[in-house]
This record gives sequence, C-alpha cells and structure tokens, in this order.
Amino acid sequence: MNLILIQSGEPDSEGRVRLGDARAEHILGVLHATPGKSLRVGLLNGPCGCALVEEICGRDVILRCDFEATVPSRPAVDLLLALPRPKVMKRLWAQLAALGVGRIILTNAEKVERFYFDSHVLEPDFYNAHLIEGLQQAGDTLLPDVQIVRQLKPFLEDDLDGLFPMHGTRLLADPSGKEGCGDIFQRSENRVFLAVGPEGGWTQYELELFAAHGFQMFNAGPRILRTDTAVVGLVMLLNQLAHTCACVKNGRGSRE
Amino acid sequence: MNLILIQSGEPDSEGRVRLGDARAEHILGVLHATPGKSLRVGLLNGPCGCALVEEICGRDVILRCDFEATVPSRPAVDLLLALPRPKVMKRLWAQLAALGVGRIILTNAEKVERFYFDSHVLEPDFYNAHLIEGLQQAGDTLLPDVQIVRQLKPFLEDDLDGLFPMHGTRLLADPSGKEGCGDIFQRSENRVFLAVGPEGGWTQYELELFAAHGFQMFNAGPRILRTDTAVVGLVMLLNQLAHTCACVKNGRGSRE
Repeated sequence: MNLILIQSGEPDSEGRVRLGDARAEHILGVLHATPGKSLRVGLLNGPCGCALVEEICGRDVILRCDFEATVPSRPAVDLLLALPRPKVMKRLWAQLAALGVGRIILTNAEKVERFYFDSHVLEPDFYNAHLIEGLQQAGDTLLPDVQIVRQLKPFLEDDLDGLFPMHGTRLLADPSGKEGCGDIFQRSENRVFLAVGPEGGWTQYELELFAAHGFQMFNAGPRILRTDTAVVGLVMLLNQLAHTCACVKNGRGSRE
Repeated sequence: MNLILIQSGEPDSEGRVRLGDARAEHILGVLHATPGKSLRVGLLNGPCGCALVEEICGRDVILRCDFEATVPSRPAVDLLLALPRPKVMKRLWAQLAALGVGRIILTNAEKVERFYFDSHVLEPDFYNAHLIEGLQQAGDTLLPDVQIVRQLKPFLEDDLDGLFPMHGTRLLADPSGKEGCGDIFQRSENRVFLAVGPEGGWTQYELELFAAHGFQMFNAGPRILRTDTAVVGLVMLLNQLAHTCACVKNGRGSRE
C-alpha cells in the first residue's frame, strides 16, 4: 500500500478521518506510524495529499488530511478486453488499476464462454475493492471506469464513438498488422483505446468489425501470449509509448 | 499449446516419435487430429518444423517430424530477478518463457525472505515443466537458462561479465533514472540484461553495486508496481524495443 486512499464521504469539514479497517492495520502494523507522523494519502478520484496522524485509539487511526489542488491526469490507455476466465479476471483487476487504465470495457466475443458473465468477479463491490488495491499499490487515485458489454457489435456501432472519440488511436494487436505500435504512435494522438481478444483470438468477422470502426492492427511480434500476459505487457508498453510521445511533443524528450 | 515441443532424445533416426502424455491428449482432444493431418512442432532448443500424424493407437499418437534447418534466434532480453514469493514465482515461469527471455537469474537481495529459496518452485523438474508450457504457448523452442544465485555481490563481481559481456545494455528500473528505456536503447547494443528488484525495492547499497557494474537506471514512470506486474510489463516492453531497434538497424523500420 504505497498510497492510502480516502473516499470522498469520509473526511469531515476539517479534513479529519477515522480509519478502522485494513488501512488502519497497514498504518499501524506495516508503517508503525505514531501520532505526529505524516503519511501520503489520496482522495479517491481526486487529488493526492498529506495526512498527519492525529491520534491512535486502539485499532483506529485518526488522520487529518490536506489534499493538493490538482487531480492526477488520467492514464492514456483505455482497454476493451474480451472477458477472460473469472480466475484470470480476478487477478487482472488490481494489475490493470496499478498499470493505469482510464476505462475497462469487458466484452463478449465469439470465443468467450457465456457463463463467465455470471461470475462474482464482475460485481462492482468485488472489482472496486480490487481496483482500489491496485491504485493504492501504484500510488494513483483515479478509479478506472468499468463497463460490461454483452454484445460487441451494438457496442462498437452505437456506444464506442461517444466513449472514445474518433480522433484517439484505436489499436488491436494482430499478426496481420504490418507495423509495430510505436510506428502508429508517432503519427497519432496520444490517447489510446486498446482491444485485446479472448484466449482463442477474435474471429475473422470480429476483426473486420474492428477494422470498420477505425481500429488499426499492429504487430506485437510472433509470440502467442495468454490473455493475462498479453494485456499486462501491452498496457505497460502503450503507457510507456504515450508517456514518451507526450515528452517529445512537450519538448522534454531526447528522442530524435 | 500452439507448438508441440519434442525433446531431442525422442525422435528415432527417421524423425518418428510416439507421444502418450499431455501432448497426445492435446493433439487428440483439442486439435482433433486424425492420421494424415500436419501439425506444427518444435525440437526443444532446436528448430521448428512440421509433423505428420502417422498413426493413432488408443491414446498414443505417432508423429513423423521434419525439422527446419535453422534454430529460432534467442530473445534479446536476459533477466536478473530478486526472487519473489514462491506463489508469484510459480506463475511467472510460464509467463517469462512465453514472453521470451534468454536467461533467468534468480537472486537473493536484502529484502528477499531467505525461506523462498527452499521452495519446490526452484527445482529444475518443476520449473522446466512450466517453462516448456510457456514455450508451447508462445511457439518458441529455446528454453531459458536458469541460474539461482544466493549471493548478489559475488555474482555481480565474479560471474556477470562472463554471462553477459559488458558491451550489452545493463538496465535497472528505478525512480532515480533520468531517461526512459527507449532513450537508452537508441544508443546501445540490442542485447539487454534487465534487473528487477524485490517487492520492497533494492537497498541503496544494492543500487550502488548495480551502478558500479555498469547498470543504467531508467525511469519506468511514477507508478509503483508489484514484482509480477512489473517484470511482465518490462520484459514485453524491452523485447518490443529490441525488435524495433533491430528493424531500424536492418533498414526495415519506419521509425524516424
């Protein structure tokens, strides 16, 4: 837990908050904080800040928070992921929040088993707890927006442009891609919408649907990766590329 | 299983091999292969090739293999990893082999618990099975070299230069890094030796030891990732950068 996240309703008007849950356990058992100690905190979907340990009452910790004026910027990558097996998805929530994604859209696809959608890992209470765990690990405050889509085609046709305007870069890793994603990045906007397919891949029909909705195929090399490996690797890669491109555009990079 | 791996002692002088294990189950149960069908195979640490299903005897499958002349090239990344918790390491073996690493060196460090080294996940029979699973997923034949190092300092002082010559790029992700790894790549050799620290990070003493042995610190952004997320993301990122740089140097890339 590298950042202790406070929810917006928790602090009183003077920024005072009483914690008695896993956060208090962490503050006492791992950080060994005593009154007067300053801790790094964040307001969920808000700014980061500092908190002073005012008082420790048994297992409860009373903090007085002072938040900064600016909210961290949203990660550059949004993700459309064909819903993996619940066991895999369970592990991915925190990893995705830690890596940084603005949006997680979980979709059906031809090669996704229908019963995956009945899993408890898709319940908001379950995934929000895991997303918050990932944010606290990474030191971010912005909870990814989550949407669960049971039909891919109507989503692409009716909802995609509203959620992710056409001027962003829509990407899909596929062996048919002629370019690496770095090449596509150099001539594009920084915001990225990445589609990652199911274990067995997208069907030809689905690939054509993505292409018709502006997705560019890029080649991530000849190795065939499992969904969980691919999605972690690709989100990391795209966030780094977006960061590098932003630095270059702002004149701060050393890339030629 | 996107490639069926055959071990060097298995085929007879005519390239015939009889399989009765999980590979046969996959060929019959997933690929639904019948005699005459051609399959993609690979020779462990050797070339890829084709195999003809000659005969099916109960649960056994007899293949006749015809291997290509050239062996796939070794992945560009070697990895030095501070040994993570056994539960995490168990999952990482197959992921690392799938992503592609030439060498996996697991090391002790100040913040690694000593008892991790007693785990069965460090036994060759255990990890080789998982590495082969990863290779069969990714479609590669080259088993990563594995070495387990119980003392970091003598390894860096006595063994590192022999295993990984100084003209390669030695990298370590650390918030103190001024550049991204893409910047370092542009003026370096393609072969990379990446050091990834334990959950609590390297100590200052360890960081100085790495710096004294030619490791360049790079900045992978402000987010603090768990070991398993970081190592998967960084290996993917570095393999892609190495691939892009190799393309540019061979005049095949479109990067400016």
